[in-house]
Amino acid sequence: MYNHFMENQQSEIIYGKNSVLEALISGKREINKILIANNIHSDAKLNEIKKLAQQKGIVFQFVAKEKLGVNVGVNEAHQGVMALISPIKYTDLDEFLEQKHENASLIILDGIEDSHNLGAIIRTCVCAGVSAIIIPSRRNVQVNSTVEKTSAGAVNHIPIIKVNSLISAVQKLKNNDWWVIATEASAKDNYYNIDYTGMNFALVMGAEHAGVSRAIIKEADFLVKIPMQRDFNSLNVSNALSAIIFETLRQKNEKCSIINPKS
Amino acid sequence: MYNHFMENQQSEIIYGKNSVLEALISGKREINKILIANNIHSDAKLNEIKKLAQQKGIVFQFVAKEKLGVNVGVNEAHQGVMALISPIKYTDLDEFLEQKHENASLIILDGIEDSHNLGAIIRTCVCAGVSAIIIPSRRNVQVNSTVEKTSAGAVNHIPIIKVNSLISAVQKLKNNDWWVIATEASAKDNYYNIDYTGMNFALVMGAEHAGVSRAIIKEADFLVKIPMQRDFNSLNVSNALSAIIFETLRQKNEKCSIINPKS
Repeated sequence: MYNHFMENQQSEIIYGKNSVLEALISGKREINKILIANNIHSDAKLNEIKKLAQQKGIVFQFVAKEKLGVNVGVNEAHQGVMALISPIKYTDLDEFLEQKHENASLIILDGIEDSHNLGAIIRTCVCAGVSAIIIPSRRNVQVNSTVEKTSAGAVNHIPIIKVNSLISAVQKLKNNDWWVIATEASAKDNYYNIDYTGMNFALVMGAEHAGVSRAIIKEADFLVKIPMQRDFNSLNVSNALSAIIFETLRQKNEKCSIINPKS
Repeated sequence: MYNHFMENQQSEIIYGKNSVLEALISGKREINKILIANNIHSDAKLNEIKKLAQQKGIVFQFVAKEKLGVNVGVNEAHQGVMALISPIKYTDLDEFLEQKHENASLIILDGIEDSHNLGAIIRTCVCAGVSAIIIPSRRNVQVNSTVEKTSAGAVNHIPIIKVNSLISAVQKLKNNDWWVIATEASAKDNYYNIDYTGMNFALVMGAEHAGVSRAIIKEADFLVKIPMQRDFNSLNVSNALSAIIFETLRQKNEKCSIINPKS
């Protein structure tokens, strides 16, 4: 088994049926090999994985289930399926800004440490049509196997931009006519009191405890908060993002046809 | 160490600084004992835990860090702090319905299997002022240690109602003038096209893959969906809930003062 994982130093490991299937479908990253536990039951997803792998000429091998688990340091999370894949290609901020953007949104993450949170954030961003996610190269979790798995493969559907300095990135965005909106618990405005239509905006989300760093808060054009209904200010960051980003979509798609179930 | 955990058969174990601190603050459940790893660094939360435990006359003991980990089957998630606590008290649906509710919301979970999802859902519900959460006694994850930890103690701030039959619960709610709204990917209406004001409503969230069961869909007064912006229909259930529940709050709190940052 050692050889499976070491033969290509450039490979990353992704695991779980959804992640492997998404990687096969998106076709954005080179899949070197797929490993399948030899005792798992076939199901629709596994059959789809095998079919696509055959079509694309990607090798798949059956191995002992235990070996898959040992190599990724997890137990059942791999669901008996794993792939060796080229590392994700980060997008360059300058290249992203050279493209034409209209009514676009992007998310800036400032100090997110938890892999599950980053995975859930990436999923939410893809579902909500966000144009890109910016993460700093330090003091933030990077895109690792757990992130890929939690994102259910969403990581292949959205550009991820890694920058050395969030402050420089924010200033660059502002110079390119993007509006920068940061979340802060003590902000005066509720997130739904902002008009997000007709502009490109970057929404900055901070770590759950520390929040968005002071330097970014100072640079932001607007600060918003999610009003808490109880004395319990501890919304998970991916859930906070979800509330705000889907509100921006509601505003963009608003049809003015509100249905009153009581009438 | 064996004795620490077996001396009270009625105890549950909660772990993590936030969970233990929340349990101390809420005071809703009896804490039998607090165990603290003897090599962890003091911080504000830990000091608060010790202070409150002293005030309330709750025993806290210092033990070897490794022993905490072994007993809950996790590694670092316990953060060196653990408590033996009375099991959560589930609320009875009939008792809940006998109370007066006005413009209230409750969440019904149908087949949520992941502990982290349930924990995040409970947190979101508390932050959003939801009145209660209904879970079925089968085919749904129950409130376990991981749920308590992921909920950051939110589980002590909201009634959780366990029912044997979700269908019976839904029918009972309808008979008590609650509106039942179920989420379904193929629903005609977007969630933001419903007027949630001026009524008590129960929102049913299903498992990510199977969705809400057919029998519940049939009973629901309204079906809503979250419109997906890309061909990637895989929003995490807690993030889906967050988008919808905060929209209901927006409607209730709407001040009509939309701020246009461009003007």
